[in-house]
Formats: sequence, C-alpha cells, structure tokens
Amino acid sequence: MSSCSIANAIRILSADAVEKAKSGHPGMPMGMAEIGSILWSKHLKHNPSNPKFVNRDRFILSNGHGSMLLYSLLHLTGYNVTIDDLKNFRQFGSKTPGHPEYGYTDGVETTTGPLGQGLANAVGMAIAEKTLANEFNRPGHDIVDHHTYVFVGDGCLMEGISHEVCSLAGTMGLGKLIVLYDDNGISIDGEIEGWFNENVAKRFEAYNWQVLGAIDGHDMVQIDQAIASAKREHNRPSIIICKTKIGKGSPNKAGLEESHGSPLGEAELKLVRKELNWPHQAFHVPEEIYQEADCKKSGARLENEWNSQFAVYNTQYPDLADEFIRRINHELPKNFEQVINDGLKLANDKKETIATRKASLNSIEFFAKHLPELFGGSADLTGSNLTRWSSAVTSNAENNFTGKYISYGVREFGMSAILNGIYLHGGFRPFGGTFLMFSEYARNALRMASLMQIAPIFVYTHDSIGLGEDGPTHQAVEQTATLRLIPNMNTWRPCDTVETLAAWGHALSLANTPSCLIFSRQNLKFIERDDATIQNIAKGGYILSSNSKNPQVVIIATGSEVELAMNAYECLCASGKQVQLVSMPSTSVFDIQDLAYKQQVIPKNTKVIAIEAGVTGLWHKYVGIDGLVIGLDRFGESAPAKDLFNHFGFTTEKVLTKINQFLG
Amino acid sequence: MSSCSIANAIRILSADAVEKAKSGHPGMPMGMAEIGSILWSKHLKHNPSNPKFVNRDRFILSNGHGSMLLYSLLHLTGYNVTIDDLKNFRQFGSKTPGHPEYGYTDGVETTTGPLGQGLANAVGMAIAEKTLANEFNRPGHDIVDHHTYVFVGDGCLMEGISHEVCSLAGTMGLGKLIVLYDDNGISIDGEIEGWFNENVAKRFEAYNWQVLGAIDGHDMVQIDQAIASAKREHNRPSIIICKTKIGKGSPNKAGLEESHGSPLGEAELKLVRKELNWPHQAFHVPEEIYQEADCKKSGARLENEWNSQFAVYNTQYPDLADEFIRRINHELPKNFEQVINDGLKLANDKKETIATRKASLNSIEFFAKHLPELFGGSADLTGSNLTRWSSAVTSNAENNFTGKYISYGVREFGMSAILNGIYLHGGFRPFGGTFLMFSEYARNALRMASLMQIAPIFVYTHDSIGLGEDGPTHQAVEQTATLRLIPNMNTWRPCDTVETLAAWGHALSLANTPSCLIFSRQNLKFIERDDATIQNIAKGGYILSSNSKNPQVVIIATGSEVELAMNAYECLCASGKQVQLVSMPSTSVFDIQDLAYKQQVIPKNTKVIAIEAGVTGLWHKYVGIDGLVIGLDRFGESAPAKDLFNHFGFTTEKVLTKINQFLG
Repeated sequence: MSSCSIANAIRILSADAVEKAKSGHPGMPMGMAEIGSILWSKHLKHNPSNPKFVNRDRFILSNGHGSMLLYSLLHLTGYNVTIDDLKNFRQFGSKTPGHPEYGYTDGVETTTGPLGQGLANAVGMAIAEKTLANEFNRPGHDIVDHHTYVFVGDGCLMEGISHEVCSLAGTMGLGKLIVLYDDNGISIDGEIEGWFNENVAKRFEAYNWQVLGAIDGHDMVQIDQAIASAKREHNRPSIIICKTKIGKGSPNKAGLEESHGSPLGEAELKLVRKELNWPHQAFHVPEEIYQEADCKKSGARLENEWNSQFAVYNTQYPDLADEFIRRINHELPKNFEQVINDGLKLANDKKETIATRKASLNSIEFFAKHLPELFGGSADLTGSNLTRWSSAVTSNAENNFTGKYISYGVREFGMSAILNGIYLHGGFRPFGGTFLMFSEYARNALRMASLMQIAPIFVYTHDSIGLGEDGPTHQAVEQTATLRLIPNMNTWRPCDTVETLAAWGHALSLANTPSCLIFSRQNLKFIERDDATIQNIAKGGYILSSNSKNPQVVIIATGSEVELAMNAYECLCASGKQVQLVSMPSTSVFDIQDLAYKQQVIPKNTKVIAIEAGVTGLWHKYVGIDGLVIGLDRFGESAPAKDLFNHFGFTTEKVLTKINQFLG
Repeated sequence: MSSCSIANAIRILSADAVEKAKSGHPGMPMGMAEIGSILWSKHLKHNPSNPKFVNRDRFILSNGHGSMLLYSLLHLTGYNVTIDDLKNFRQFGSKTPGHPEYGYTDGVETTTGPLGQGLANAVGMAIAEKTLANEFNRPGHDIVDHHTYVFVGDGCLMEGISHEVCSLAGTMGLGKLIVLYDDNGISIDGEIEGWFNENVAKRFEAYNWQVLGAIDGHDMVQIDQAIASAKREHNRPSIIICKTKIGKGSPNKAGLEESHGSPLGEAELKLVRKELNWPHQAFHVPEEIYQEADCKKSGARLENEWNSQFAVYNTQYPDLADEFIRRINHELPKNFEQVINDGLKLANDKKETIATRKASLNSIEFFAKHLPELFGGSADLTGSNLTRWSSAVTSNAENNFTGKYISYGVREFGMSAILNGIYLHGGFRPFGGTFLMFSEYARNALRMASLMQIAPIFVYTHDSIGLGEDGPTHQAVEQTATLRLIPNMNTWRPCDTVETLAAWGHALSLANTPSCLIFSRQNLKFIERDDATIQNIAKGGYILSSNSKNPQVVIIATGSEVELAMNAYECLCASGKQVQLVSMPSTSVFDIQDLAYKQQVIPKNTKVIAIEAGVTGLWHKYVGIDGLVIGLDRFGESAPAKDLFNHFGFTTEKVLTKINQFLG
C-alpha cells in the first residue's frame, strides 16, 4: 500500500499552511496523516465533484483544530479546495478558516472546534441515517446506506458530551458509526497521564461498543484492517484506538505538546522535509500523488450507481422518491403557509386556557400531520416538556429505527448537539425538549446551530418562577434574556395557545435559523384577537390592544406576564389614560421589522413599560434609560407559583402601583 | 441492626411531606432510605449541634430532587430542622425548599438539583480535603481527615459532567471520595434500559475507581459492609452500586416512574402505612426512633475529641493553627486593602502594554505572595490562559497533594463545579481558566456559584474577535453580555494592567459573589491615570478623561475597545466637542454605585455612545433607545485580529465616522 506518499503530502501541506498563516495546529494532521489517507482513499464513499451526494459517507473532524488535515484531504482527493485556498489558510474570507466551518468549504459536514460536539453531531447523523433508511428504503432498494466516520482526540473524549452521546450511541446500537481515536497521549497542558489516565477501551466496552485496537496509527495495513472490521460490525458502534505520535515527521517536536498548536518554525520545517524525504517546495505536491489521491473518478462512479438505483426506485415508488428529495433538501410542503394559518384558526377557535407547554404539544400534534420529517425527543422530561405527540414512535434498534422520537436520557448537551447532527444529515426536522434552565447545560450547541445557520428547534418548558416549588435551581430568570443574545437565534416566549402555534409555525418556516421555543408550566389565559392581530404575531411584537392613536404609555409584556399587563392596561384605560398594550413573544423577530412598523408598535417619545418575570437589562433597548421594567434581577425561591408571583410583585395590584408611581 | 425503623421513618416523612406540599419526589427517599440511614447512623462523622464542625465528613445529595431524604435525616439525627420545617416543605421562606439550597438549611453542604453537579462539587471537596490535610497536618496531628460521601442517581451518571469529574477523580486517586449509586433502573421517561444501558461498574473500573457491589440497597448489612470496604481503600475513589426499588414501600407505585416526581396520593399513602406497618399519623415519629437516630451525643463527642486535638496542635503550631482558622473561615489577611493598593501602584508604575491575560498572570503572581489559599488551574489551556504562577506546584497523588494547581484536562464544566466544591469545603480560594467561549460549556456551574453566594473565580481569556484566526467558534461576541446577566455575578472586562489588577483585587475581596474575569489574547495599551482615577476603578465604571463639566457626549468602552474610544475622544476634543470618556470594566459593579456618582459618570440628557466588540443589546441600558452602540451583532470570522477589527469597524477612523454621523 503506497498511501504513505499521500500521508506525507498531508503532513507537509499542513505544516506549510500553518507556517504561512503564522498560526494553527500542525501536530494533529501530522499525527493522523496515515489514518486520514487510508480512510479517504480506501473506505470513504464520497464524490469530490458533488460534496452533497446524497448517499455519501459522512466524515466529521471532531478534533477540528486539526482542520488542515481535512483541507489537505479535500484538496488532494479533488474537491473544490485549491492550492491557493490552502495558502489562504486562516485568512479573511478564505475557504480554509482556522476551524472547519459548515457552509464555507465543500465537504465540511459540520462546524467543529468546540471539542466533543463533532462526535455528538456524528451520533445524530448516524441516527438520521438509520431512521431515514428505515423510512425510505424498500426491499432491494437501499437508497440510504452509508457510514458516519469521526476523528476524535483526547480532548473530545475528556469532554462530558462524549460520555453522553457515546453512552446513548451504544444503547441505540448505531452499527454504522465508526470513531477513529487519535490516542497520542498529549494535550495542551502536556502529557495527559496527569489528568486523563482512564482506560478508554474499557470505557467504550462499558458503553456496548466494539473496541478495536490499540493499533499503530501509522501502520497503514493495521488502519485498513481495523476500518474493515468496524464496517463488518452492524449492531454496535465501533471505536478504533489508534496510537499515534503527534507532529510525526518533525524531528524535534514530534511527540511533544510544542507541535500541537503553533507553527513548527522555518528551521524545523526544513528538517521535516529532510525527515520525510520531501524535496518539493512549499505548496507543491507532485502530480503522481495527486493522481494517487484523486477520488473524482471513483466518486463519480459511486454517484452514478446510486443515481441509476434511484432512477429505478423513482419508477417503482414515485411518490416516495419525490418525498425523499423534498425531505433531504429540507423543503417544506408547498402549502405550508396555509397550514400555519389553518393551525392558527384552529387554536383561535378553541379558546383554550392551558399551559403553553400543552399548547406546544397541541401544535406539535397539528404540524406532525403535515410534516413527517418531525423528529422529536426530550432529555428525560417527556411528560413534563410534552414533546411526544400521540402517534409518535420511539426510535430504537429493536424496531429497526421505525420511530421518530428519542428519549435522550438526562443528556441535554448531547441531545442538542445530536439534533444539530440529525438536521445536518438531512431528511428530518429535529426538536428536543428540556427545562428552560437546562438550556444552560447545552448552551454551546445552540450557538453552534446558530453559527451553522441550521434550523433545529429547542423546546424549553417551565420558563420562570412560574414553575414554583422546584425552586431557584430550576427557575429561569436570566435564561430567556441570554438566549435572545445569541446571534441568529429565533427565540419565542408565547403568551397563549395562538401565539404558541404561531411560534411553532415561525420556527418551522425558517431554513437557516434555529429556534428556542419557551413555554410555561402553568396555565395561561387565552387572549381574544381579530384576524389582523393574529397575522401580526409573526412580526414578533404587535399591538394587542390600544385605546388611542397617540398613546401616552406603552406596556410591553411576554409570556405569562401578558395577562398581567392586560389587567394593568384595562385599569389604566379605565382611569382615563391613553395606553397601548404590546405583546412581544420574540424580540429578535420584532427587531428585524421595518422602522415604521416598529414605531407604530412603540411610538417615539412615549413612556414605555416592560413586564417580564426575568432579568431586566435587555428591556432598556425598548423602554430606554428611564423606562420602567418590572422584572426580576435576582434568583427565585422554592414555593408555590402563586406565592412567588405575589412575593416578587407580579400581581395586578403591585404592577399597577409601580406603573402609577412611574407615571407620577 | 435495627435501622429499619429509621429507614421507614424516612419513607413516611418523605411521602407525607410531599403529599402535604402537593409536589415533590417521594420515590428516591423511599428507595434510598436504608442507604441513608446506615450511612448517617453508622459511618458519617458529623455533629448535628454544629453543622460547620470543621473535620466533619461532607455529605452531598447529588440527586437533589430527593431532598426529603436529606431533610428527614437532618431532622431525625438532631439538626435544627424541626417537624414543622418538614411540614413546610417547598413553602415560601421555609428551611426545606424543593431542592437542598446551601445557606438555607443546616447540614446542606451545597445546592443540588441540576444533575451531576453535586458529584462534581464532592470531587472538589475531596481535592480540598487532601490538599488542606497536606498543608496543615503535622506528624501525629491529623486535624484534617474526613471522607466525602455522595449520593447519585441514574440522572447524575448520564450527565456528561459525571464523566469529566469521575475520570479526573480516578486519575487523581481521591481515596476518600465515596459514591453511593442509587441504581433503580428508572428515570423520568420510564425504565432506563432504552436510553441508558451502559455497564456502570465497568465504566468506573475504566476510571480507576474501586467498584463495590452491586449490592442490595435495602439490605442493611450489605450497605454497612460496602461502606466499610470503601473506607478501607485509600488510593482510589469508591463507588458502591446499590440496586434499589424506587418508591419502595408503596404497594402500587414502587419500582415505577410514577413514584418519582409526584405525591403518591392519599389512598396510596394509607397503603404505604399498612405495608410498612407504620400506624402513626402524618409527621409523627415515635420517640424510640428519634432516640435511635439521634447523633447529637456522638457528634458532640467527635467534635470534642477534635477540639482537644486542635488545642494541642495550637500549642505546638500556634501560627499554623491561626492560619488554619483564617483559611477555613474564608477570611482575608487583615491588610488586604493595602495589598490591593500596593499592587495597583506596582502595576501603574510599570506602565506595561501587554495582553490582559498576561496582566492577569502578573496579578496572580502578586496576590499569590499574600494569599496562600489561592488554588489555580486550567481546563487544558494553562499556557494560553496564563493561570499558572511561577511558584505553583501541581496537586496530585504522587506528591501527596502538595500543590495548589490542577491541570483539569478539557473539562470546563467539571472544573467549574469542582471549583465550587473546593470553595465550599473551605480553606482555599479556587480559580480556573479556559477560553471565554467555553464559559458556555460550564455555564450552569457559574450560576450555581452565584446562587449559593460563594466566591470562586472564573478566568476567561481570548475575549473577542481579538483572538483572530481560530475563528467564530472561538470568538466570544455574546458571552460577556450573557455573563453580565447572571444575578450576583461579578463580571470584569479590564482594559489594561491596572484595571486587571483592580479586577483581581475586587474579585478576591468578595466573600459572597463569584467572579468572571475576562481577558484579551492581544496586547492592550497601558493607560495613564492619576491616583484618584485609579481608586475609581473599583466602582466598575469611571471617568477616564473629560474636557468638560458638562459634556455633550459620553463615550463608554470596555476592555480592548478603551484604546479605540480614547483615540476617538481625543479627535472629538480636538474638533471642539465637549466629551467625557468612561471606562466601564464592570457594569454590575457600576450599577450598584449611588445615583449621584452614576450621574456624574453618565450625566443625564447627554448623547451616550458605547463601544464594545460584542452584542449591543444590553448597552441600551446606558445609552438609551437612541444612543449609539458600536458593537457586533453577528458571529466573527477566521482571520488575523487586525483584519477583523478593521472589517467589523473597530478602527479609530471607522468609529469616528459612526460617531460623527450619530452626532449629526
């Protein structure tokens, strides 16, 4: 096997690119060069000419700091990543950012860097593959049939999320998930023995994985055989433990932390060239290596085969084929706007005073009829989050992944990053629930969804002191505000059944933005609206009631505080004030409306009041420095919800007192 | 052994209290009743009359929803938790909130509920015990010598943080940490087999723990023997796997999820009384059970013995004894204000233009000389966070925990919750570093510190797009703002060496508030200040320069943007404007200053501008609706820092253009 030359090309390209950028991580690509070259040239089913080839194997670089390994492989195997792109490593606007960024570079399946999450995304992709295969494959027609490969380092395996998702992957028996572990014994603080001496093989056996190795991660025959063994196992995920030397090829820095995250230096790079017997100048790769590495031809053949297969499938199952194409492309049904309007009408007609978490379940029930791509779940709070609709079936190995619902266990971060992976795979619209508080356990996965511009939906119930007796550890007072601060995050806190349906509809309509939907534990009063008002909900903030074209006072509220604001509004109206009541379930959606609309909702030079049972800071954006925010800048307490709302001033009487003081 | 009656008392008290509160979790206390009673009556070294007895064993209920188990034990063994307190379970202002809350109830060592974190706190306590013992014990004088016991459930072990801290605990060889695992096979979604079928014993063996059991968690002899075995092991932490039946004692709900998180119901409670042969009315416990359970006498004896021991120690090592008392009580050295002022003078005299992360290291160096209680660390970014001062020694089993520095590995959440545990134990002032971005991995541990009103210090470097090439996954744009929203969190983003010293000094001065100290990767220009100005830094926001008593414009900036703001200020002054320049390293500290001071810094009815390379929303609190915020409401890009600051408008020229447009 002669992949050695490809491996050395990876080493040199990586070290050269880091050197030119004056920053980056040469150690990992040099250490995993053989593993990368064998996997990509001998096993990975992919088509460089069409990075989106539907039935491709998914490849995830969870140790994303080693991005030059991936860029080198993409370049050498024939993707649209040129040698000039490699020269532009880590430069503004390049295809080769410091960490692999989804959407920037062909062949990058997910954004990685925050350790452990790539592995979790991969688990999501493996779940999606199994479930999509079950749904669309037919006897003799395995149109969905691929592996998911992940590279991980010690850092990924130290992170807690690796435990969450690997334990789940083992339980679920994800046989087509193959992890290659770069066991190089080095992390940034040095030799890991002092902080990470667990027995990884035993740990993964405990998770019910097939454990292969330890193999010599620089021995191409061993790598090849181990991957082949992993592919033969169908009922358990596999991890291949690859003993490697970080920075291999660098005479003075191999095996040391020094090679991890800094350029090797000009002098050392010369020695690397000598060591590897690589006489070529920077960014020059001999033509024979390109030819050897090129996967364009084999990739085209793979895709042509699949296309032929799919053509037959299309004649035998035309509806299924159409649906498959729609689903894999994340296209909504054509009539989806009408669907939302039907849902709004239904919710409005029912006039139910229920918890918005229950209204959320009703919304899921409604949309599930129209969107078979819905893939639900909860981090062990199904009965509390109310995420499971009546016809949902649990997805597991026993039923060969017939279902589209997962009890993720108490694994909020893992679940959230898995949702990202399910979405990235294509074919599904994943959502998952937990208590709003535990969005904090998963926080960086939400950010990654926002950054990647993908659209999973995070369902958060029990949204404030309204959850009552469980106390301050579970009472979200600052979480709604902090979620609103994530760029490109669609955050909603609806006040009743109709706003809840609208929030779900809005979230499902978005293709490039994830959503956080925030719901109450307790019942919230149904609010009467005319049709025009209902249509305005989708603008994020809207006039719910107004007794004047030129109000003196505007009261803004969200969620459970809207009823309170309405009571206050009515009292103020009765006392002769000119008042406007605004419901603002989504500040981020309101913010992107045109100025005229926004100034109609919150006219300039009025006194503005905001009411929300949470931290106040952000509301000054709408009420100004001198506006009144009736909120809660402290933690809650354990007590029945009613007592808490009373104690913390969220009663009509107390709110009115504050407002009247404010108005003077 | 007759603890059976105590166990049944726990069952009944728990079920009755939940019933009365109409909410809560009876299943766990009923399932762990024997385990609790054996541990507390036969093994736990504690003194109900002095819950703060220095050398007590620490007991942590990591599965905190089972709080009635702990409250029952506190009540029965003789703590100041009365039967009326139990009747007030989950009511406003009671000592018995829904989850155990630190500071609310004698004998509650940490607040638990968010799963997995209690276990992490316990690891921190076990580290603190070892390190404090090494520092203060002398031959024949083991004044620090106790175990740390933790109860965990399936939920704790599913959470990723359990992996992080148990892997580290195994590596560190924390022999006096004993975990009792409530292996009841049930979580909220039902029988866990479908989402958690890992082999926990094997997993913990992989972590280098002593694994005991599975034992019958209702067999008191087996429990007793297993705890004894755990205590005999000195070099490895122990986990005792206890097979239990959730809700044991409830004829119709034992073993079922139904008993987990809801009252059993009046009818079922009657059957429980019958099943347990418990004829007594609600909240009545027979006197003989109280007598059997009472630990006041044995506790007083324990403490008296320790007091005698300490008296001898005090005569032989009077200075050490004084220092021990100071340290265990979290008292600062008496001259600490002077120390801060000396540090400020030193930093000011040096006039260094360096990265604030480097200034942070200089501050640590400085304070470490005065505070031997400093206990540092980093989540595998020591060389980047610059958290390790020159005389720091790594804490590990090899040196018998001589050091006060830990390389925590890539375990941000675990580290942060461990810092909480180290602080809660007493004796140390812990801090730990990671990149600001990865505060997100640890977010809920920061909140728990704020909620508990304890004062660990979280060091966050690489604070904005200024980190450059690593790209948007690592560039914090919204994190500083979201940290500012946590109630009782002391957040600082200093602009130079002097502000950095002030931030560290302020953080170290606080006894009931944790801190997030946010530092730059890149060099920041030293700023000249007079003495009065230096004193004002501690007010969180202050006038850095002003050319008028009645400014037309106020420019506020933080961190790396202060230099930029200063340049803009000078240009505006030169063009004849009346301008005031404000540095605001800590908004939360500024917010609590008196109104007169605040209005001096930001006079009413001036035009206000804020400059910070992050999300803008929160700044409207200071600039108003119509103020100008020059910030960044999107994710960054991978490129050299200079290119990014230029691209995103953070140059003097671009900032001036915006300001001039704004001023019209």
